Amino acid sequence: MSQVACEYRTLPAKRLRAFGADCFAAAGMPEEEARLAAELLVRSELRGVETHGLVWLPNYCRALREGRVNPTPRIAMEGQGAALRVDGDGGLGHVVSARAMDLCIERAREQGAAFAAVRNSRHNGAASLYALRAMEAGLIGLSLTGGGVRVAPAGGREALLGTNPIAFAAPAGEEPPIVLDMATSVAAGARVTLHARKGLPIPEGWALTPEGEPTTEPELGDRGALLPLGGTLEMGAAKGFGLGLVVETLCNLLTGMATGPERARGEQEDRRGTGHFFAALRIDLFEPAEEFRRRMDRTLRILRESTPQAGIERVCVPGELEWQREREREAAGVPLLAGTIRSLRELAGELGVPGPE
Amino acid sequence: MSQVACEYRTLPAKRLRAFGADCFAAAGMPEEEARLAAELLVRSELRGVETHGLVWLPNYCRALREGRVNPTPRIAMEGQGAALRVDGDGGLGHVVSARAMDLCIERAREQGAAFAAVRNSRHNGAASLYALRAMEAGLIGLSLTGGGVRVAPAGGREALLGTNPIAFAAPAGEEPPIVLDMATSVAAGARVTLHARKGLPIPEGWALTPEGEPTTEPELGDRGALLPLGGTLEMGAAKGFGLGLVVETLCNLLTGMATGPERARGEQEDRRGTGHFFAALRIDLFEPAEEFRRRMDRTLRILRESTPQAGIERVCVPGELEWQREREREAAGVPLLAGTIRSLRELAGELGVPGPE
Repeated sequence: MSQVACEYRTLPAKRLRAFGADCFAAAGMPEEEARLAAELLVRSELRGVETHGLVWLPNYCRALREGRVNPTPRIAMEGQGAALRVDGDGGLGHVVSARAMDLCIERAREQGAAFAAVRNSRHNGAASLYALRAMEAGLIGLSLTGGGVRVAPAGGREALLGTNPIAFAAPAGEEPPIVLDMATSVAAGARVTLHARKGLPIPEGWALTPEGEPTTEPELGDRGALLPLGGTLEMGAAKGFGLGLVVETLCNLLTGMATGPERARGEQEDRRGTGHFFAALRIDLFEPAEEFRRRMDRTLRILRESTPQAGIERVCVPGELEWQREREREAAGVPLLAGTIRSLRELAGELGVPGPE
Repeated sequence: MSQVACEYRTLPAKRLRAFGADCFAAAGMPEEEARLAAELLVRSELRGVETHGLVWLPNYCRALREGRVNPTPRIAMEGQGAALRVDGDGGLGHVVSARAMDLCIERAREQGAAFAAVRNSRHNGAASLYALRAMEAGLIGLSLTGGGVRVAPAGGREALLGTNPIAFAAPAGEEPPIVLDMATSVAAGARVTLHARKGLPIPEGWALTPEGEPTTEPELGDRGALLPLGGTLEMGAAKGFGLGLVVETLCNLLTGMATGPERARGEQEDRRGTGHFFAALRIDLFEPAEEFRRRMDRTLRILRESTPQAGIERVCVPGELEWQREREREAAGVPLLAGTIRSLRELAGELGVPGPE
């Protein structure tokens, strides 16, 4: 393991959004979709989720130019009542997912609630981006994504499931809202990779080696299997595994995409692409929206002001720190790793667009 | 801690269902509802979930006779499209929940998907009972229940949330299906109580003392706080806490019931009763049902046949053991603790119905 320098430089969010949109457009996407995808990618940076941010832009643009991601998908949406069936036509996951969630929101306004099962999509970044969309429209949002073969079943040695994130967002009044975004493994895959890059050991219980033995070495964990949330059977690993299976069911089986176990065994037949599952739910059919928000505020405030454990500063609600960071960075700019900025400059050269700075 | 004898006797499931129905009817419930509630209670025993089985029958019957649970609720169901609003009128949670899920199933058949937010219910036993109902109708089922003040937030010392179970069920073909039923704490509250009864220490990381310190003594854990799934922040406790908040949002805020934090601080105003959230989702709008089942079978088989960790016999899918147990016990009878049988005999005497044997 070798320590690498982590120098950051801060660039304005507005500039980065324009840069991202230029790149996506130069890679073949229509202008409106290019702007939408860039906005979502930069939003991850604003929220401090750098593992799902601009570091991906060069990959996405190359995949678009090489046709592995379709720059001009004809996203097909059909469905009866509250159940929507969306085919992403191989388009960038960000665009497909935003469109699918927007339709869910529209249908939920009529039907009270709506779900979308999405097939033939691609990587869509942070799952919470789409739950946030519902929340900002005043609804409750749910966003699940399948894909990957990284996580062992409870009690198992082999990587067979995706990290299968679950995101959920619900509005509050004056308090920062609940925005949950969790891999169903103990630690997200990107956190293990980050430990490797920083030369730090990973805590025991995050991962197994390729031989299925416990390890604290991030490189071995990266090549082996992540453990499901809970870690050991005694500490509830069957629950993390079960949640992973919920995501496989809704995102992969319901959509005709390959499940993690099928991919791991080469039994995916001709199934390609990524599946997602979104839901949006109206609040005001059940409770007056103002009352919901008032009581959400009170509930969150009690939690935040409750007594922390020894050595912990205070109790944080999921999504609270990201919410504050987004407001700060929108004003003060986005810190990017020097290495990321270099790769964006190279990308600009390749695509013939102005650089990110 | 003192060891207690755990003698079991086996009684036929059919007899226990009839006994349960007699008791509920004698406690004031209409015959059909009495049969339904008894069937659900005995089903928990068949599945080996004895913490949610007949041990509760005396409590339920006394609560019905004393008017704390309404024996003849007028369950009101209204709602637009896919979103149902159910008021349980203080009825036994089992009956309210089964009725709400049955309506979800009916609506999902028309609308593709439906969900119900239920208010003014009472304890409904094992959350999976209602997800199973959807699954056995060929749909995907989701069942959440709020209530209780047992679990600390991630990094916190105080019991502020309910154990807030999440249940999910999806059909397979020939394999036992996925039936997940999980508290959002590391261990369900009943498991801590069971350790206390058996005189066994609890594993470190399950619970805190009333003073908020880690403990392996089940009595202290029972009076203190359970830890959210993940246990520590390093091992993902924010995820268990987040899932607990999802349940508080859907089961308590959306329904006008008190949240855990509100109850803990005495800020529940005049809110009483328990809230639930159910959803049912049609498969065949998305994929042919046969194809879904075939691929679910393949996916589950790969998981079950995968290499286990050292010291673990084999990988089990959530719900697999309960599924097998249900079939065995339906044929061979239900083992009940001698103490439970005694309490059922006493109940029979009180209600003037024939005993359970």
